[in-house]
Amino acid sequence: MPKTIKKVGVLTSGGDSPGMNAAIRSVVRTCAYHNIECLGIYRGYQGMIEGDFKEMGPRSVNNIVNKGGTILKSARSLEFKTPEGRKKAYDNLVKAGVDALVVIGGDGSFTGGLIFNSEYGFPVMGIPGTIDNDIFGTSHTLGYDTALNTVVDCIDKIRDTASSHNRLFFVEVMGRDAGHIALNAGIGAGAEEILIPEEDLGLERLLDSLQKSKASGKSSSIVVIAEGDKIGKNVFELKDYVEANLPEYDVRVSVLGHMQRGGSPSCFDRVLASRLGVKAVESLIDGKSNYMVGLKEDKVTLTPLEQAIKGKSEIDMELLRVSDIMST
Amino acid sequence: MPKTIKKVGVLTSGGDSPGMNAAIRSVVRTCAYHNIECLGIYRGYQGMIEGDFKEMGPRSVNNIVNKGGTILKSARSLEFKTPEGRKKAYDNLVKAGVDALVVIGGDGSFTGGLIFNSEYGFPVMGIPGTIDNDIFGTSHTLGYDTALNTVVDCIDKIRDTASSHNRLFFVEVMGRDAGHIALNAGIGAGAEEILIPEEDLGLERLLDSLQKSKASGKSSSIVVIAEGDKIGKNVFELKDYVEANLPEYDVRVSVLGHMQRGGSPSCFDRVLASRLGVKAVESLIDGKSNYMVGLKEDKVTLTPLEQAIKGKSEIDMELLRVSDIMST
Amino acid sequence: MPKTIKKVGVLTSGGDSPGMNAAIRSVVRTCAYHNIECLGIYRGYQGMIEGDFKEMGPRSVNNIVNKGGTILKSARSLEFKTPEGRKKAYDNLVKAGVDALVVIGGDGSFTGGLIFNSEYGFPVMGIPGTIDNDIFGTSHTLGYDTALNTVVDCIDKIRDTASSHNRLFFVEVMGRDAGHIALNAGIGAGAEEILIPEEDLGLERLLDSLQKSKASGKSSSIVVIAEGDKIGKNVFELKDYVEANLPEYDVRVSVLGHMQRGGSPSCFDRVLASRLGVKAVESLIDGKSNYMVGLKEDKVTLTPLEQAIKGKSEIDMELLRVSDIMST
Amino acid sequence: MPKTIKKVGVLTSGGDSPGMNAAIRSVVRTCAYHNIECLGIYRGYQGMIEGDFKEMGPRSVNNIVNKGGTILKSARSLEFKTPEGRKKAYDNLVKAGVDALVVIGGDGSFTGGLIFNSEYGFPVMGIPGTIDNDIFGTSHTLGYDTALNTVVDCIDKIRDTASSHNRLFFVEVMGRDAGHIALNAGIGAGAEEILIPEEDLGLERLLDSLQKSKASGKSSSIVVIAEGDKIGKNVFELKDYVEANLPEYDVRVSVLGHMQRGGSPSCFDRVLASRLGVKAVESLIDGKSNYMVGLKEDKVTLTPLEQAIKGKSEIDMELLRVSDIMST
Repeated sequence: MPKTIKKVGVLTSGGDSPGMNAAIRSVVRTCAYHNIECLGIYRGYQGMIEGDFKEMGPRSVNNIVNKGGTILKSARSLEFKTPEGRKKAYDNLVKAGVDALVVIGGDGSFTGGLIFNSEYGFPVMGIPGTIDNDIFGTSHTLGYDTALNTVVDCIDKIRDTASSHNRLFFVEVMGRDAGHIALNAGIGAGAEEILIPEEDLGLERLLDSLQKSKASGKSSSIVVIAEGDKIGKNVFELKDYVEANLPEYDVRVSVLGHMQRGGSPSCFDRVLASRLGVKAVESLIDGKSNYMVGLKEDKVTLTPLEQAIKGKSEIDMELLRVSDIMST
Repeated sequence: MPKTIKKVGVLTSGGDSPGMNAAIRSVVRTCAYHNIECLGIYRGYQGMIEGDFKEMGPRSVNNIVNKGGTILKSARSLEFKTPEGRKKAYDNLVKAGVDALVVIGGDGSFTGGLIFNSEYGFPVMGIPGTIDNDIFGTSHTLGYDTALNTVVDCIDKIRDTASSHNRLFFVEVMGRDAGHIALNAGIGAGAEEILIPEEDLGLERLLDSLQKSKASGKSSSIVVIAEGDKIGKNVFELKDYVEANLPEYDVRVSVLGHMQRGGSPSCFDRVLASRLGVKAVESLIDGKSNYMVGLKEDKVTLTPLEQAIKGKSEIDMELLRVSDIMST
Repeated sequence: MPKTIKKVGVLTSGGDSPGMNAAIRSVVRTCAYHNIECLGIYRGYQGMIEGDFKEMGPRSVNNIVNKGGTILKSARSLEFKTPEGRKKAYDNLVKAGVDALVVIGGDGSFTGGLIFNSEYGFPVMGIPGTIDNDIFGTSHTLGYDTALNTVVDCIDKIRDTASSHNRLFFVEVMGRDAGHIALNAGIGAGAEEILIPEEDLGLERLLDSLQKSKASGKSSSIVVIAEGDKIGKNVFELKDYVEANLPEYDVRVSVLGHMQRGGSPSCFDRVLASRLGVKAVESLIDGKSNYMVGLKEDKVTLTPLEQAIKGKSEIDMELLRVSDIMST
Repeated sequence: MPKTIKKVGVLTSGGDSPGMNAAIRSVVRTCAYHNIECLGIYRGYQGMIEGDFKEMGPRSVNNIVNKGGTILKSARSLEFKTPEGRKKAYDNLVKAGVDALVVIGGDGSFTGGLIFNSEYGFPVMGIPGTIDNDIFGTSHTLGYDTALNTVVDCIDKIRDTASSHNRLFFVEVMGRDAGHIALNAGIGAGAEEILIPEEDLGLERLLDSLQKSKASGKSSSIVVIAEGDKIGKNVFELKDYVEANLPEYDVRVSVLGHMQRGGSPSCFDRVLASRLGVKAVESLIDGKSNYMVGLKEDKVTLTPLEQAIKGKSEIDMELLRVSDIMST
């Protein structure tokens, strides 16, 4: 029979993403709803080690559902990678009366949680929070939908200039290991070509496609490029290469950068955060541990943290074909 | 063996929704991709009757992926409800060489398409376009995701005023028959209570909930109300009722209205429109007819139009519980 | 020689407007910059009476420059209209060591400040905060520019639907006594006609204009109507009247409502708030009292509060002509 | 006595800016209002040379008041810098019956217009369109206000991440020669420091300020940097320099880039565009030439093009002091 949970600790870790605050709010209020206490842990695992805590009741999370970033802040913790660091963290949690943990973050954060659990038997639930959508076991991570809207909004603006001047733009978006943002935002923004880490179309194909585009009467074009694309040139080198090979093109580069991580979350991300927070806390109450809550086929589900970490989030290859057709 | 499709007609019908232009673009470009001609039909079935047509090539739909409304316009057509009207429409299509139809719209639009098909054997595919998300056979209709973001954005603004003045706001959102918008936007906007057509919580429950909210220390509250809620009072009567029964509350009413139908589509709606357009045209090419393309469990699927019309799109009742917990 | 100011109290009063938080931040930090203490007074004059205070240092106002509403909240105070109420307020301020007051609000708030000053000789400076822009002595009140952007953004969305359906929309915007919002947002949104409190064009002119618009080939139109227009019918009666007289029109009504008061302030409002806050505090330091800080011809200036209250903010009648030409 | 104007040509030239379409619309409709014809000239002076023209009536400019970019497109023209090029352009205009010109653009565009006028006596009026606000004779250029809102919106998003991670961000904004955007958006976004072309604060001051900021308890900071700042290091070198000298800081760089030029114009820019277009056309009708229409102290005025080109738009140095106080 599982131990009764009396106090849940919640932290955000890794890169921040829109919806983390909505998830914190959900965890806090679900605890209150079930008459469980809730402790906010600042700056991720580092705050656990330093005992940087704050008791949180339902009024602590008023008016944050619509705020980007994380009120609990986030930080990397080298110290938590050491047994000594984790020991301090554990002692702090015990002292504070915390008997279960909700970790909002990505792969690295979940790994930390798993090790912590293996050492101290501490119940841990993960909530996937990252704009990159690169986590196995959920169709959507918190912040991904918002980031897509931020990116298409930026490219819509860039397109104003591109089409006024008949120019070609290379727009670099986030995604070191996964092309979700590039692929979806690229389709959404009407990109001519999309370069992603999962597939190397090759330089020839890019040149070919741009030539065809010109021939088909398009006067301006956008190419969306994920940070981690496999074309073998960074975005500025690619500009030089294309200009050298297709002198009819005047290429501009825009690197969207960190703004992609911020902003008020979309309705989707707020609702998802609310649902995942409820499930995370209620799963702990039910005696479960070492799972990530996620969304699969529109339903909230549990995936073992180990799978979530090892698995690879696949892109939908059919979208590549859709993108191709859309750039006709 | 199915007849080879040489020319597809496309129209938008019923209330407009964000993403209709992206769907038109997708239909047009998928036709071009498969070397099929495409004819734009203005003002829905009425334009079919009047022969209000325009040949569309891939460049006809440049720079519309991000535009709200529909470049093909929409209109009601009483005449199409008569056999004479449909005869004229058919004759016009034949004259224009059109041999298949893509109808972007809601229930009523699909019904028109089905009757037309039953009379003339004309292949018809439906794409669900309405912000209300009240169509069976798809988890998302075109424009629904955008409308959710529009609504939470408006309520975020209203909340600024509500919390500055410690007031209670009743916000009426669209949804005559379905509570999808109210329920999801209500959770997204952090509503205290949500009134939807699918469930009558009753006046007592509302008063009770507002009293508890005050007692719990909340200084301001938002109640989100679908047009078609079942509480038996319109939003202004409800304001009077609440003020009469809870004199501590100063209630303001905001009816969001038609702006919910407009605006640049979200990335989700643009990608969905692109995928559905491809599937609609390729299904016609494959010899299929009388289906609606839709999204189920993140995959593009076909639902017989008849089912789409008769079926009822269900809300996720679990969300009511999530809403309850969130308003702790 | 003026008394040295050691501690400034700041409050927001009346309807909230975007930029009030930026002004609070500016007052607080300007105090800190000059080594003066600052006391936040909650809920306007009512909080002064109740002693609802908070000491504020430069870190109290972190991350509010971009927030709508007012962190100090606002409220009406009937009690402050009585000598007894003002006596309590004065005693509280003296007890708290406050020796000067910055009032952020509109006409009514300034009147309260003036009376308070006349009774207790308390130095008072006003900062004009209201979206209506109806205050004499400043070309722009805080929140006005933001409200204009909110309104045109809403009407842009409504236009999507209007032009998709060839409809006429009547959009009611805020402005009981002043047509600034209606006039400027109407031009910005491309309105066919604009009805404002300052001028009654008459029903005939409206019908005439709508008929000409139809004749000129326009398929849809927007009429922007200030709450306080002088046409003698409310917006719903006007709809009925127009539909009765111009049966070719299908009129829809949208009342934008309270969302116009909310939202993140525009850059203009943030900069204006910053400038006005500096000037208000430094004027108090200079020994001045009973002035409103405002913007005239792009420069920050002082206007005696008495004038600001009695004067009438004029609309630029040339804009009516511009609107006329634009709807050609 | 001035020649009667019968047909006005309008073009956009140089970098595009939000509001250019609203200005085109205003020129076209003001012409129609006064029963003058209007010719749209594509791609600036280059289109004049190539005879790339389009007759424009009031319905040609429907639904563009809210669109970024320019429907007339823009381009550089080396050929127009030669007498032969200008001769061709003149011949084309004469052939098309154009007898006056409205040029929407910046310094370079006005210079082209002046030379053209000096050679052919062709009446020319300029409308200042550039986001940089670097034109003498107007307090605001078209697009500047919109760009400020775009920039603060981006920095608001970046701040979410900055404050979640306690980081320092260097954000580079447009402004090769003028610090208007950096200075105003910097204040609006709550920047710690602002580097502009007009003043070199020096590296010491920057380090000093950042150190004080840390000491004062700020956990994150934004530094806004104009492209043309005078600190002698580009933004990436500056990051390295600061990290070398202040190891407690983890600096991230974001270059906002071309998106600053795009987007739907703010209400202010739409109204300004409408007013300037009216004045430009009516001034031509009045027989005036070689002026730029602009805004001074909220009034529409004329400035000789020669002065507009030679003069220097000054920044408001008082804003530097306001920025200083705001970062207390």
